[in-house]
Amino acid sequence: MTDVKEKALAISKKFGGKLEVISKVPIETMEDLSIAYTPGVAAVCMEIANNKESVYTYTTKKNLVAVVTDGSAVLGLGNIGPEAAIPVMEGKAALFKRFGNVDAVPISLNTQDVEEIISHVAAIAPSFGGINLEDISAPRCFEIERRLKEMLDIPVFHDDQHGTAIIVLAALYNSLRLTGKKIGEIQVVVNGGGAAGIAISEMFLSAGVKNLMVVDRTGIISETDPELAERHVEISKVTNRSFRTGTLEDAVVGMDVFVGVSAPGVLKKEWIATMNEKPVIFAMANPTPEIFPDEAKAGGAYIVGTGRSDFPNQINNVLAFPGIFRGALDARAKDITIEMQLAAARGIASIVSDEELNVDYIMPDVFTPGVADIVAASVMNAVKKEEVLV
Amino acid sequence: MTDVKEKALAISKKFGGKLEVISKVPIETMEDLSIAYTPGVAAVCMEIANNKESVYTYTTKKNLVAVVTDGSAVLGLGNIGPEAAIPVMEGKAALFKRFGNVDAVPISLNTQDVEEIISHVAAIAPSFGGINLEDISAPRCFEIERRLKEMLDIPVFHDDQHGTAIIVLAALYNSLRLTGKKIGEIQVVVNGGGAAGIAISEMFLSAGVKNLMVVDRTGIISETDPELAERHVEISKVTNRSFRTGTLEDAVVGMDVFVGVSAPGVLKKEWIATMNEKPVIFAMANPTPEIFPDEAKAGGAYIVGTGRSDFPNQINNVLAFPGIFRGALDARAKDITIEMQLAAARGIASIVSDEELNVDYIMPDVFTPGVADIVAASVMNAVKKEEVLV
Repeated sequence: MTDVKEKALAISKKFGGKLEVISKVPIETMEDLSIAYTPGVAAVCMEIANNKESVYTYTTKKNLVAVVTDGSAVLGLGNIGPEAAIPVMEGKAALFKRFGNVDAVPISLNTQDVEEIISHVAAIAPSFGGINLEDISAPRCFEIERRLKEMLDIPVFHDDQHGTAIIVLAALYNSLRLTGKKIGEIQVVVNGGGAAGIAISEMFLSAGVKNLMVVDRTGIISETDPELAERHVEISKVTNRSFRTGTLEDAVVGMDVFVGVSAPGVLKKEWIATMNEKPVIFAMANPTPEIFPDEAKAGGAYIVGTGRSDFPNQINNVLAFPGIFRGALDARAKDITIEMQLAAARGIASIVSDEELNVDYIMPDVFTPGVADIVAASVMNAVKKEEVLV
Repeated sequence: MTDVKEKALAISKKFGGKLEVISKVPIETMEDLSIAYTPGVAAVCMEIANNKESVYTYTTKKNLVAVVTDGSAVLGLGNIGPEAAIPVMEGKAALFKRFGNVDAVPISLNTQDVEEIISHVAAIAPSFGGINLEDISAPRCFEIERRLKEMLDIPVFHDDQHGTAIIVLAALYNSLRLTGKKIGEIQVVVNGGGAAGIAISEMFLSAGVKNLMVVDRTGIISETDPELAERHVEISKVTNRSFRTGTLEDAVVGMDVFVGVSAPGVLKKEWIATMNEKPVIFAMANPTPEIFPDEAKAGGAYIVGTGRSDFPNQINNVLAFPGIFRGALDARAKDITIEMQLAAARGIASIVSDEELNVDYIMPDVFTPGVADIVAASVMNAVKKEEVLV
């Protein structure tokens, strides 16, 4: 880890950050100049002035995504502010380009006020074909995303929530292929009541999971809890319909699937024995998971996935967001709907063939060629279906 | 012209806009990924969180400029809105990269309210090393620039005003080398009381011009005019100290230099005969100048410059802004001061050697290798001098 960190500092210093903005058009002669800039550019401006939609034909907007943060919840580092958040936004932008051929630009905002953030993002929207919200703390991120989705006619996506949810759902789909269980019949516990935990729970429910509990630091979230936190009211109405209470240890009893987006080491080996047969463990706390794979396996786990690349079954957002934006941009979608997200999860899961699929290989390698293309195609297909339904 | 416009449309359509955002760091292996993104990136974030200034060492901020518009005064096309302005902003960004190796991003704002524009630009500033304001209408552009320069610790520059002023001053410097006249003794008339005309006048005064008049559509601007427009009050106090009144025809009598940033064909050939000996004409209206060079020469002009590349002496902003930002970014200047602007003008003028200099070659070709480097060096030198003086 130290090695990787030193290399990250060295490479960022050497290159002065990770991004570069280049011209796709040649500028080597006076004629090139008069085409790229004045007077030629006036014709392009007038074309768009006369037909606003043609901005997608003639400008970078068609492929440009703003990676927006306020620096309030950067990785696991917390509220480190807009400047210190830039390296993550740059990294995200670099991955957008590498995996999805999406051009992305870091926008680090100098405010953490919800109304101001909404106003600034809406103001810069004309230049962009999409907005990727990143590392904005809960519960502020919920309202910011909801309001911007309503206001803007370009896709707005909070990757920390939905990107994570999509990729965990893909992992669930492929686990079900191996366990032979049906999605409507499994029992799921999600440990972690933050933005990611809620988003995963909502996505699982949308995908057809019927029995799901969310556990927070205070225990199982229940609609009947008189001290239920405001931010859990909504999720409490659609989860834990048997109104169970208790600790995580109580919650895992009889579960088919454990999803952790919580804290290091909170899942004990012995508890896995109390789960249903062929238990599936997604221990996503980073860098130290809720339980290490070897321990989980020793406790009886059938499939174990983590967020890490040094264990099998890495559950990595990089499989999702580049293809989702690629598909949304190419389809000129005005939103990234739940149907598009479900399609993305199915697309990711489908990349692992029946021959390849096994308990130590449920997720495609992020460097598998064409991952983003397949995800994009799934997303575009969902857009077409929804257009037919409208 | 039609040809250039058709080519501009074709090339914008073919490439889908002019810009691309690429990664400078390799992302081909899992290790690359862990360096460019998590977990390695956390070390870079923490470094900046602990020492905010190091954002200039480790991120793209050090070389990234926002090209900001509200679409209110795009080229000569007027208020065509933020989407239709994007091609110009992209073109500007492409030139920033080609000539100054500055990474630039178009930011087209969805508002034309002065307070809102100031607020949005200030909010996105953490990501950027500089702000280039572009095609924002007068008089709004004055307040927006002034307030942002006060608020932000990164350079803010309105190229339509100051870039133009710098390049015209460079043309003046080299004209004086040929006419042998002294800057403190020449008589100058600036035709055009808009943002560019006022900026040129202010820059000329800063450079040592003592006798200067500004002429607007209503005639010579005079402090004594009871109907003086609010936006001309300030300039009226430092120009036209003999309180002349009258039309442009009256104004050019006895002048050494005519600068036009006004309208096509407004300078008559016969009037040039009424100017001082070796009259210098900068007819910058675009695409049709205040007078065509052959006509001006026939009328007795000694030197004629225009904004066009198909005549000698093209007075082109491209000679200025890439080098100015290159220098300001490399010097980590917090502002682009008047001293830096004067230095830039001297730097541009110096590129034309005594041997090269003649009445049909007062400005360097924009493709002369090293123009931006020389301008940047002049600007950095001015920064150093000012730091010594502080």
